[in-house]
Amino acid sequence: MSGPREPIRLPEKASTERSDLDALLDSTRVGHFGVVADDGTPVVIPTMVVRDGDRVLAHGSTGSRWMRRLASGVPAALAVTAYDGLVVARSAFESSIRYRSAVLFGRCSHLSDDKERFLDLITEALIPGRVAEVRRPTKAELAATLVLALPIEDWSLKISAGWPEDEDDDVAGPAWAGVVPVRSVCDAPLPAPDLRDGIEVPPSVRALRSQGGA
Amino acid sequence: MSGPREPIRLPEKASTERSDLDALLDSTRVGHFGVVADDGTPVVIPTMVVRDGDRVLAHGSTGSRWMRRLASGVPAALAVTAYDGLVVARSAFESSIRYRSAVLFGRCSHLSDDKERFLDLITEALIPGRVAEVRRPTKAELAATLVLALPIEDWSLKISAGWPEDEDDDVAGPAWAGVVPVRSVCDAPLPAPDLRDGIEVPPSVRALRSQGGA
Repeated sequence: MSGPREPIRLPEKASTERSDLDALLDSTRVGHFGVVADDGTPVVIPTMVVRDGDRVLAHGSTGSRWMRRLASGVPAALAVTAYDGLVVARSAFESSIRYRSAVLFGRCSHLSDDKERFLDLITEALIPGRVAEVRRPTKAELAATLVLALPIEDWSLKISAGWPEDEDDDVAGPAWAGVVPVRSVCDAPLPAPDLRDGIEVPPSVRALRSQGGA
Repeated sequence: MSGPREPIRLPEKASTERSDLDALLDSTRVGHFGVVADDGTPVVIPTMVVRDGDRVLAHGSTGSRWMRRLASGVPAALAVTAYDGLVVARSAFESSIRYRSAVLFGRCSHLSDDKERFLDLITEALIPGRVAEVRRPTKAELAATLVLALPIEDWSLKISAGWPEDEDDDVAGPAWAGVVPVRSVCDAPLPAPDLRDGIEVPPSVRALRSQGGA
């Protein structure tokens, strides 16, 4: 077949480029915090993450035991991974995935001042433009929300963005090789069962369809 | 607007249904292992995961330090998370995401017998039908691959599949509410730069477009 060709890149590389890290953090909404429990065993906590300059914000309920543990400043690791495609090689062994994967290490702090601004940032990261369409948070809502910040200081980043690297014998053989890009998309919005008649889908939600789901 | 309506479900629930866990594990290819380093700090390792009956398989290079540490049987946690949509409430506070999130706890064992069968399982999970299209792995390839198995014994599962749960005052207000489903899709396959002329895209790769990217 014929089709678009991309330049050859190394199949996997460690990147020390802060811009690569920011691009990953700014396009991926789910992260996984690793933390150590009192008994010394590991726990992994999935959470939404949003970059705010030189730190990553996460939020949760003040009722969440693991969020409170993270807020107490214990050592934490935060992984943010994007799955970008399948690398289909001529052998099973060389087949893999295209991905970008960052792990940040450090201790979270608990942001109590200016919480409203951080919650706006999180809302806008999830649904750009939504803050202007909804009411402001109440004091009770702010009090029920824990906002954590992990500094972007100690991190590693791996990017697998390349092509199959088959042995010469396999390249000469009959098998196909290439990449199948994978991406996230937003489908048409579904109205809530209790939505009142006559309320149109707002601009923020309409715009999501063209952006992909992150 | 008008559109499809779904039955109301609880917005977030813990599930103890093994079938819900299996559905998540069978449709999601990226997992995150949590493990504790020698210095007592947490580490998170992203990896591909595939369910094989009552265990989850992961594989990596025998040269990977963290995979070897997992293989040694230290306590591990494995999180597998699917991001299924945006819950757009009438307030920022009630807005959230639809997701399914499992965490499995236990110790990995290192599978040395029958490794070829496990690698076939992993290849088929990633690209169904691909095993029949490529050569068998060599002894050297098998020797370079570490296959880990984590038993499905001690796990928790949370499913957020519901609708915005706004306060009555907000429901009576002007803001829209609903859900924007998010899913992963495969784009058209891109041929490798070194693909020889005349080799067609195989059935396994053609079939991926209709399946979504997981």
